[in-house]
Amino acid sequence: MSDDKIRTISELGEFGLISHLTKDIEIKNKSTFKGIGDDAAVLDYQNKKIVVTTDLLVEGIHFDLTYTPLKHLGYKAAVVNFSDVYAMNAQPKQIIVAIALSSKFTLKAIEELYSGIRLACENYNVDFVGGDTSSSITGLTLSITAIGECDDENIVYRNTAKVNDIVCVSGDLGGAYMGLQLLEREKQVFKTDPNFKPQLDKYDYILERQLKPEARRDIVKLLKDNNICPTSMIDISDGLSSEVLHICKDSMVGCSIYEEKIPINQQTKDMALELNINPVVCALNGGEDYELLFTVSINDYEKIKNLQNISIIGHITKEGDGVNLITNDNKDIPITAQGWNAMEES
Amino acid sequence: MSDDKIRTISELGEFGLISHLTKDIEIKNKSTFKGIGDDAAVLDYQNKKIVVTTDLLVEGIHFDLTYTPLKHLGYKAAVVNFSDVYAMNAQPKQIIVAIALSSKFTLKAIEELYSGIRLACENYNVDFVGGDTSSSITGLTLSITAIGECDDENIVYRNTAKVNDIVCVSGDLGGAYMGLQLLEREKQVFKTDPNFKPQLDKYDYILERQLKPEARRDIVKLLKDNNICPTSMIDISDGLSSEVLHICKDSMVGCSIYEEKIPINQQTKDMALELNINPVVCALNGGEDYELLFTVSINDYEKIKNLQNISIIGHITKEGDGVNLITNDNKDIPITAQGWNAMEES
Repeated sequence: MSDDKIRTISELGEFGLISHLTKDIEIKNKSTFKGIGDDAAVLDYQNKKIVVTTDLLVEGIHFDLTYTPLKHLGYKAAVVNFSDVYAMNAQPKQIIVAIALSSKFTLKAIEELYSGIRLACENYNVDFVGGDTSSSITGLTLSITAIGECDDENIVYRNTAKVNDIVCVSGDLGGAYMGLQLLEREKQVFKTDPNFKPQLDKYDYILERQLKPEARRDIVKLLKDNNICPTSMIDISDGLSSEVLHICKDSMVGCSIYEEKIPINQQTKDMALELNINPVVCALNGGEDYELLFTVSINDYEKIKNLQNISIIGHITKEGDGVNLITNDNKDIPITAQGWNAMEES
Repeated sequence: MSDDKIRTISELGEFGLISHLTKDIEIKNKSTFKGIGDDAAVLDYQNKKIVVTTDLLVEGIHFDLTYTPLKHLGYKAAVVNFSDVYAMNAQPKQIIVAIALSSKFTLKAIEELYSGIRLACENYNVDFVGGDTSSSITGLTLSITAIGECDDENIVYRNTAKVNDIVCVSGDLGGAYMGLQLLEREKQVFKTDPNFKPQLDKYDYILERQLKPEARRDIVKLLKDNNICPTSMIDISDGLSSEVLHICKDSMVGCSIYEEKIPINQQTKDMALELNINPVVCALNGGEDYELLFTVSINDYEKIKNLQNISIIGHITKEGDGVNLITNDNKDIPITAQGWNAMEES
């Protein structure tokens, strides 16, 4: 059966579909001993530590296919797992993908999804080593497991921040959330007027933040190249507030974050103002930025202060001092977890 | 907030729920370096090879909560992944669990599910090292990743069977499928008469095969204790036919399987006859037995022939000879993949 004659998933069957979607996959990493094609993938990490992380993405909860192209979804689903690996100061090396899909999906649609996953693997030098495909009653569910490696002494946890450490963040915050709000708004307009053509040009940056985020491999490299090892690190998937609280709670410290230091892109600000939202609230509570939040020793201040794409936003304090936002008019406001929370969306 | 006052999932939130469900988890394995509580779990396998496998289970496709107690579901979901690890001749060491659930589930229900997963971990000496919890629109979706270890020289693949090897299977086949048919029948009766009390006593074995299967750790140990290393191995999740075809196709060989040698439990036979199905068809095409199908060298015949719980059911032939069932009246019937296939169920 030649590929160009294949039109439906049921013609291929489960095993045919998997081999169709994963054909021509090349193994790039030494640690991948055996990829797709057996009961399990086999890895060989020799003396390295291994990090493993899983995400489950459900249609209607984590993504909306009305405005999410499947290729973008696949790319993002892979990248958000890589982001968890980088947040351990590790390098992603393998990915395993399980999908469940209802009969509304054509083979072409699933090919799009996989092409996004494979593009992410290519861009981040990750091997696609296993898959599982089955039916679902409604919609699409994606489960992605990413595996990465790190030298023993370089792993960075979230519970090791120390008093007086500097709090840093990569890139800018709130953009992905504003991109989502824009897409949701345009979707509502489109519902009432199907001939409506959304004007999205001036918001390309925040749309890309939402639809095609990247993981901050470059930041992990930049820190390493500058001989900076973070004292703690976490990726920002649920909003700055939520992640700052994780680091502080797990490290048993407090912190002061300065409102004026929180990096926010101009498009994020513009969109927030259009929607009558305080941009800082977007940065604190909006999810899915996939930036890195980390702390470094005060001794590394000179090394870090002028690095591109890294903002110093505060410092670690004693636990009893609490976790506070210092506003532009110099008030202390306790930071609470109002972040994006998948549990609250149903 | 004390635990006995907690009544709802939304009161706990995502992070509260995860920590509630995973509290008191003890790490048992040396290879688990850091378990739950960071962006990723950290493992240390030193010089061992690592095997990784994932399964995605969707309500209404892979399980029916009408007759599947949640504790059993959790247990089974974990065990079927361990089975994939054993099928590599490896030992499962860690598990990561992601769940998505709709608002119909109470905290108590999710506790039941996790208690099943944790019981499986306890029984199989596996560490629970990570989790992800989110909402779904309808029903329950479970994604489980199991990770295991194996010495380099002992890993067994499915593509390494050789001509003249003996084909063996553990336990008996078709029972889980008959258990499912029985449950489905009783469900239909119950639908028309809600006062109906199903009489399931005489079918306790096949019900357990369906609802609480075990992975064949004992067989992997038995083979090792008897100095037998299989030449190829796979676990039987989709029916004997489907798995025999995987081994033969991937190993580029044929095989002859003898109908009379296929092990079938008496309850499986009784239920099949009650439902007017040929018991051998159940064994060939029924899924979810989680027995091991493996080949051994003809030189190991004396070592294996009297081992408990292992049946010799055939032998490997040349590729050109095809994959055949030799019936009791000595006819050759080509084996085709009619197995249980999650793709065809929607």
